[in-house]
Amino acid sequence: MENGRQIRWNGWGPRNAAPPESFWRWLAGALSMPALLATPPRAFADIALPPVRLPGETLQKFSALGIRRDDEARVRHAGGRSLSDLLRLRAGDISAAPDAVLYPRAESEVLTALVLCAELDIALIPFGGGTSLVGGVTPPTDSPSLALDMTRMDRVTSLDAMSGLATAEAGITGPELERQLGARGMMLGHRPDSFEYSTLGGWIAHAGSGQEAVRYGRAADWLAGLRVATPAGILTTQDAPASALGPDLKQLMLGSDGTLGVITRATLRVRALPAAEEWRGYVFPDFASGLAAVREARRQGLPHSMLRLSDAAHTRLHQALDRARHPLDARRMATDAWLRLRGFDHKACLLIAGFAGRTGEVARGRRGFDALARRMQAARLGAQPRWTAQRYGAPYLRDVLLDRGLGLDAIEVSANWATLPGLYAALRHALQRAMRDHVPRRGAQGLVLAHTANAYPDGAALNVSWIYPRLLEDDLAQAAAIRAAALDAVAEAGGSISHAWGTGADYRGRLESEKSAQGVAALAAVKQALDPKGILNPGKLLP
Amino acid sequence: MENGRQIRWNGWGPRNAAPPESFWRWLAGALSMPALLATPPRAFADIALPPVRLPGETLQKFSALGIRRDDEARVRHAGGRSLSDLLRLRAGDISAAPDAVLYPRAESEVLTALVLCAELDIALIPFGGGTSLVGGVTPPTDSPSLALDMTRMDRVTSLDAMSGLATAEAGITGPELERQLGARGMMLGHRPDSFEYSTLGGWIAHAGSGQEAVRYGRAADWLAGLRVATPAGILTTQDAPASALGPDLKQLMLGSDGTLGVITRATLRVRALPAAEEWRGYVFPDFASGLAAVREARRQGLPHSMLRLSDAAHTRLHQALDRARHPLDARRMATDAWLRLRGFDHKACLLIAGFAGRTGEVARGRRGFDALARRMQAARLGAQPRWTAQRYGAPYLRDVLLDRGLGLDAIEVSANWATLPGLYAALRHALQRAMRDHVPRRGAQGLVLAHTANAYPDGAALNVSWIYPRLLEDDLAQAAAIRAAALDAVAEAGGSISHAWGTGADYRGRLESEKSAQGVAALAAVKQALDPKGILNPGKLLP
Repeated sequence: MENGRQIRWNGWGPRNAAPPESFWRWLAGALSMPALLATPPRAFADIALPPVRLPGETLQKFSALGIRRDDEARVRHAGGRSLSDLLRLRAGDISAAPDAVLYPRAESEVLTALVLCAELDIALIPFGGGTSLVGGVTPPTDSPSLALDMTRMDRVTSLDAMSGLATAEAGITGPELERQLGARGMMLGHRPDSFEYSTLGGWIAHAGSGQEAVRYGRAADWLAGLRVATPAGILTTQDAPASALGPDLKQLMLGSDGTLGVITRATLRVRALPAAEEWRGYVFPDFASGLAAVREARRQGLPHSMLRLSDAAHTRLHQALDRARHPLDARRMATDAWLRLRGFDHKACLLIAGFAGRTGEVARGRRGFDALARRMQAARLGAQPRWTAQRYGAPYLRDVLLDRGLGLDAIEVSANWATLPGLYAALRHALQRAMRDHVPRRGAQGLVLAHTANAYPDGAALNVSWIYPRLLEDDLAQAAAIRAAALDAVAEAGGSISHAWGTGADYRGRLESEKSAQGVAALAAVKQALDPKGILNPGKLLP
Repeated sequence: MENGRQIRWNGWGPRNAAPPESFWRWLAGALSMPALLATPPRAFADIALPPVRLPGETLQKFSALGIRRDDEARVRHAGGRSLSDLLRLRAGDISAAPDAVLYPRAESEVLTALVLCAELDIALIPFGGGTSLVGGVTPPTDSPSLALDMTRMDRVTSLDAMSGLATAEAGITGPELERQLGARGMMLGHRPDSFEYSTLGGWIAHAGSGQEAVRYGRAADWLAGLRVATPAGILTTQDAPASALGPDLKQLMLGSDGTLGVITRATLRVRALPAAEEWRGYVFPDFASGLAAVREARRQGLPHSMLRLSDAAHTRLHQALDRARHPLDARRMATDAWLRLRGFDHKACLLIAGFAGRTGEVARGRRGFDALARRMQAARLGAQPRWTAQRYGAPYLRDVLLDRGLGLDAIEVSANWATLPGLYAALRHALQRAMRDHVPRRGAQGLVLAHTANAYPDGAALNVSWIYPRLLEDDLAQAAAIRAAALDAVAEAGGSISHAWGTGADYRGRLESEKSAQGVAALAAVKQALDPKGILNPGKLLP
């Protein structure tokens, strides 16, 4: 069933080689566990899908929309890729599978699907790459539903090189979009961790951000205009560079989670491929000094595409992985010895810096950041050409951890610079306590890892993940309890719990605390106007 | 009645010295008019206000909100500063004066005003500096109304220097905001032409942009969070640097024209005062070469705060003004002679460039733009230290033109780079024809002047104004006919008719063509949710 280019039905991408045993021994020690046993997922052949609830004559009405009712299509659209989604899929729980999947090839077919679903009162789940980390594409279990797979709509339809604007269909994936743009010397540069599988429409619907958003912008920055099919008809916006003719309605769709309409087409601010691109490594004595350098670089407007600062725990995990995979790498061993000599200890934090653009711009950015790093007593590791090969690796690691009885969950929060240090400390504290309270073995513990996901002049985003031994008999409740502790800590410390992942089903209970009851009422009114029967992606976004 | 710090009741700022007669002779020639006779406005003493419609006991209920019912307060809130507003005020037509004016000092008082007005079904017009150019604050003539003057709420209430965030009350004017921030070494840098009188709340409500928006951002860029009093209660947003927890609801208030709520307080992204600031002049052979330089500077990310390119007609008008005012200025005469020698003719276009920031950044921006200008055969005029003294001068000129039988109207449009040249040509053509069709004298004509108001990587904004001899017996209809021709031309050529001025009453008929019926329906639903009785600024924004 797996073809290597698709995301796996119960995991990420093609199956990855598991790390060597030396890594597992290191990790078992870090978690205070005696060993990490194999916990393979259930095989596809052993799983029974829930029966199709919609009668055949109803499904027949969708026959012009590329409908599929086979098990594979249904399983592939049974949820996203949050930890809870994966725990359910690995356990063989497919109760959320849609009754069937539609594969429209044009906006008119999307509109037909919407009109039919509204008429027949069937939930419709817009589905791009299916990589949602917050339950954004999980069908309802208590009523019939259809998934609307947008990936057949995958063309760049026009390019205006003079203005730097490209228009593309919303189902196009990251690699395909960059391939079609690259053939004409242009690029978008939106590179979230899910880049290989996620789609343009998904990036917009969850208000996404990429690894190099400092240079290439968040979805809110590069989105110039869009077309959205709603049960009330096609909503369009103009592509003008800036307008004050009423509120900017693109903004209603950024973060709408597919609940207000189906994005069919978007006009994007693109740019020429950079003349030069460089990745460099730095090691800071601790997280605070690294954060200060990131903040200062952003404040000064120093040209760079990425400053990804890992905290000490994240740094140590990746060192352990690297040592296990390349035990005899001479360059790494020399670097390790040199860093020890310079006094870097277990608090050391790795930073990967990206510079891109014209040659002079790249050199200026690097020189400027070198100076900042020096002021903070950081060590330079030099060029890191291997970064691009591993930049989308994070979600793969989760699968191999799941295979060894562990859980890996994450949130991505944002906060002002003044709030961030307190938020980081509170989150680590809350997570460590929650994991200790929910381990399968007395004395065992979890790991909390963090890295900056983006930085702004006024604050930054932190990707915070946690690894812990699963309670195998009740791992869904365990995951939910630990995650709730993290969300509570963010709400208390004062930040946003979703920097770039949307709201989905998982965070909708948190909407009012960040947006006020009046804000939620305004959003609900928009939903009512565009989707009066509430067929679009029920149970997401709105509380 | 005028105190020199306030905007005049029937014009802009304090009365300005009229240009010398030599300028009027030049202008009469340019308009093919034999002479430009004096047409003074009616005196305040000669004007009768419409009777107050609300009974005394009703107004009594607002007595705790600093209510004023005198003629001066009512006249000062009878409208904004569009050409039509001024023509009406100068003719003594005050029919739109509100019944009374409230001057709240705190958010709780704003909320009280909203609740009372909703209960009593009285229109409430949020009023900042009263400088709207699009009929954004004109009270209804057919029903009672109260103006809500926000200018008593004028304090910076907190400053977080670590994050670069300041919170201020929404009634603060530009100079007062920069004074309070400047005392702590910080600045916002939002400098629209109306800077001297307009307020923070107004900037947000009409989604404004300033002269140096390239460096300091549009309202949408510097607005980090806000509080909005609505009849449904206080809507608040979080100040996180970026969030994907649902759509960004700040965006609903940017461009809301005071129809969805009253902005009471905003958190702003501020920054340190620049170490260096420079203004330099360039002359380009024609508009196209100047636009190419502006576009290239923006595309390269060259550091600058402003590149304000005048078209040939705008350049000539300002040369004529300058010659009339300073006929013997040796430096100007030398420059004129040098430009003639170099072959610059009537197509020559002036560009004022602003550079600000750290010293190296300013030098790099200037060097980079010098190189671009050289490639386009432009001449460098050197430093223009006088720019800051005249930067807010445009609205003053309108008053003295109105005193000589002329009209001066304007729009500020935005379009992509590919669309902009065609839009500019179509607008000029449409305006010249419309003015010829509506002149008081056969053979007379109007002037169309343009300058760039801001530039973006994907396009630019043009401020397009037009000067013409008024039909004194019917100047309101004449102004409306000419303006309609301009708006039609923009709609046809494909741009937004409001780059930074909001929608107001004047553009609301154009909303659907830029936002689609579905978009307008979504906005109307928000209005219904937050202001179900429709008391807030009726007749603005929504068609």
